Amino acid sequence: MNASLSSWKDKLLFTPGPLTTSPAVKTAMLRDLGARDDEFLEIIIDVKKRLLHLAGVDKEKYTVILMQGCGSMGVEATIGCAVPRNDGKLLIAVNGAYGGRIADMAHAMGMPAETVECPENQAISPDDIDKKLASDKSITHVAMVHCETTSGIFNPVKETGNIVAKRKRAFIVDAMSSFGAAEIKMEKWGIRWLVSSPNKCLEGVPGFSFVIAENRALAASAGNSRSLCLDLHAQNEDMRKNGQFRYTPPIHAILAFHQSLMELKAEGGVKARMKRYQKNCRALRKGMAELGFEEFLAPGDHGWIITSFRYPKDAKFSFAAFYDRLRDGGFVIYPGKVGNAELFRVGSIGHIAPSDMACLLDAMRRTLAQMGVSMAPREITL
Amino acid sequence: MNASLSSWKDKLLFTPGPLTTSPAVKTAMLRDLGARDDEFLEIIIDVKKRLLHLAGVDKEKYTVILMQGCGSMGVEATIGCAVPRNDGKLLIAVNGAYGGRIADMAHAMGMPAETVECPENQAISPDDIDKKLASDKSITHVAMVHCETTSGIFNPVKETGNIVAKRKRAFIVDAMSSFGAAEIKMEKWGIRWLVSSPNKCLEGVPGFSFVIAENRALAASAGNSRSLCLDLHAQNEDMRKNGQFRYTPPIHAILAFHQSLMELKAEGGVKARMKRYQKNCRALRKGMAELGFEEFLAPGDHGWIITSFRYPKDAKFSFAAFYDRLRDGGFVIYPGKVGNAELFRVGSIGHIAPSDMACLLDAMRRTLAQMGVSMAPREITL
Repeated sequence: MNASLSSWKDKLLFTPGPLTTSPAVKTAMLRDLGARDDEFLEIIIDVKKRLLHLAGVDKEKYTVILMQGCGSMGVEATIGCAVPRNDGKLLIAVNGAYGGRIADMAHAMGMPAETVECPENQAISPDDIDKKLASDKSITHVAMVHCETTSGIFNPVKETGNIVAKRKRAFIVDAMSSFGAAEIKMEKWGIRWLVSSPNKCLEGVPGFSFVIAENRALAASAGNSRSLCLDLHAQNEDMRKNGQFRYTPPIHAILAFHQSLMELKAEGGVKARMKRYQKNCRALRKGMAELGFEEFLAPGDHGWIITSFRYPKDAKFSFAAFYDRLRDGGFVIYPGKVGNAELFRVGSIGHIAPSDMACLLDAMRRTLAQMGVSMAPREITL
Repeated sequence: MNASLSSWKDKLLFTPGPLTTSPAVKTAMLRDLGARDDEFLEIIIDVKKRLLHLAGVDKEKYTVILMQGCGSMGVEATIGCAVPRNDGKLLIAVNGAYGGRIADMAHAMGMPAETVECPENQAISPDDIDKKLASDKSITHVAMVHCETTSGIFNPVKETGNIVAKRKRAFIVDAMSSFGAAEIKMEKWGIRWLVSSPNKCLEGVPGFSFVIAENRALAASAGNSRSLCLDLHAQNEDMRKNGQFRYTPPIHAILAFHQSLMELKAEGGVKARMKRYQKNCRALRKGMAELGFEEFLAPGDHGWIITSFRYPKDAKFSFAAFYDRLRDGGFVIYPGKVGNAELFRVGSIGHIAPSDMACLLDAMRRTLAQMGVSMAPREITL
């Protein structure tokens, strides 16, 4: 039970995050810095600079706000700040659990909101958003999840952003599981608020989220927040005044994040990381097809962050047993999350390479054989 | 700038937290565990068991809820859940910044609230609370900060708890900087909700807070929360169902916390830790009196978590210069937080011993001499 005796040879995580991080990212946490220490404040400045750079925007127009807590807290903080208290109304695109969660947030805060919904195996239609905005003039903001981790599908953020801009509404993007490994052009695509997490494609550890906000939108959000602690505007004002967090920051997680951003740069930036994840994902999908697994999404709808597979129809297959055997062998996969569909998921992100995918696939092959599950290989076009 | 090359010989933190932690606590973070991994779920169970034990209560009557984010998020989650939406009203005892922050939280959430206030160098009077409860029947809940870190003063939680119980209201205690190093009898003192943090007297790292709630009060709080993410009831329901966090947990910070709780037990529990901090604090106060510093609080009002000192009257003293020189020597102290009073603070908590206090005092003596600040020693009765 003494965690300090553990080696770095932990199980490999094929999950949507928290995920496998590099030894150096974890080692960066072997320090205690004061929350007001100059060295820590310089690290915050550098982290924010690197995030703006990754988003392809500059500080004349955009600001990074770090927010303590999990990614969902960052999303709740963002809609709670962006949408005005008196005359704001949020339209939420829902094709999975994370879009649905934003609707739940609005409900909990008593915020007027509506949804545009479609099934989990389809991307949201920008036309549906357009029609809704045309018919309901009271909608002020639109929120969309970029990569809906429920299925792994990417929603059309670019096209939706153009429509939202044309309709003169504000666009909020939950890029939790895509930022850092997908092209996102905040300014061109009309994204006013983008929320993401250190422990997805940026390969840091969990403990906070970050929001990239258009300066004008952020300035206009003063007093909107339904919460003291989740008030992005107030958080940024304090940071602006003295470079410090308003309340206790997760110092160790931020030290890890700083290291992870340096590693992203060393890898070659967003394009290189996206390429590695795409390679991971292709190796996975090819191998899974050979094993006979069927994908949940149609081939053209595939992203490269996480992939959903249907349970084999063979009665000898039990997901619980499959999961446990893989875990005991050192490989952690992820349960499914789509209504009653019998699915499981495998992530392609984190400090993992195609060679790790090969090991996972070997373990799956062995496990299926042990379970006596046999499937015919499937054709797949990647 | 490469954090991974740093040694464990970081600056010593004499702050109210985040603070200096043991090497083993930090080393416990050198792992990546899946959020649904059995090993992680067992650690959560053990952490909760140890916290109940520290609070001297059992699971038949109380429940521990871990909540992502900073300590203040735990406080906001607690009042946002405890106080009913329709007919709830919160009375807040305010004699410092942290009591004031609770009032700000209520305001941001649109929660009816009133305050009982007194100056920062005085403890709240239980009689004032009693009178207020007698005169305003609409008050349903009372919130009080145990150790108000603004000055270091302890508020009379025991006496207030008895009054709140007698008046049949619910009592919420912010024990952020006292839990783990002060006697707290939740049941006897009528505390329905207690909030604290891993990175104060429990010597873990920041990243979440925890709430210990009376089971009946927690059960009755369903649907009260003004926030989705900060909903303690929902957080606990998910944990009850499958042992998992609702949203991504700060896994590394929880691993560190588990280690820190084992170290607390090895040290001898709450009484032993309180004793060490009291020794630290006595060594500090004695040494500071010898150097000529004047305390902000009257001698009888002193706690042992953090101590406020007035700036020397000598015009050659500059706090900024004093702070910087100490920091450059490896000692981080803390600015003051009381209105316009010219104060600074020194914490006695964390992985530090009286010998560390001696080093700090030596550094202060040297620094004052370098600055040319001279003060006459003061008498002090400890």
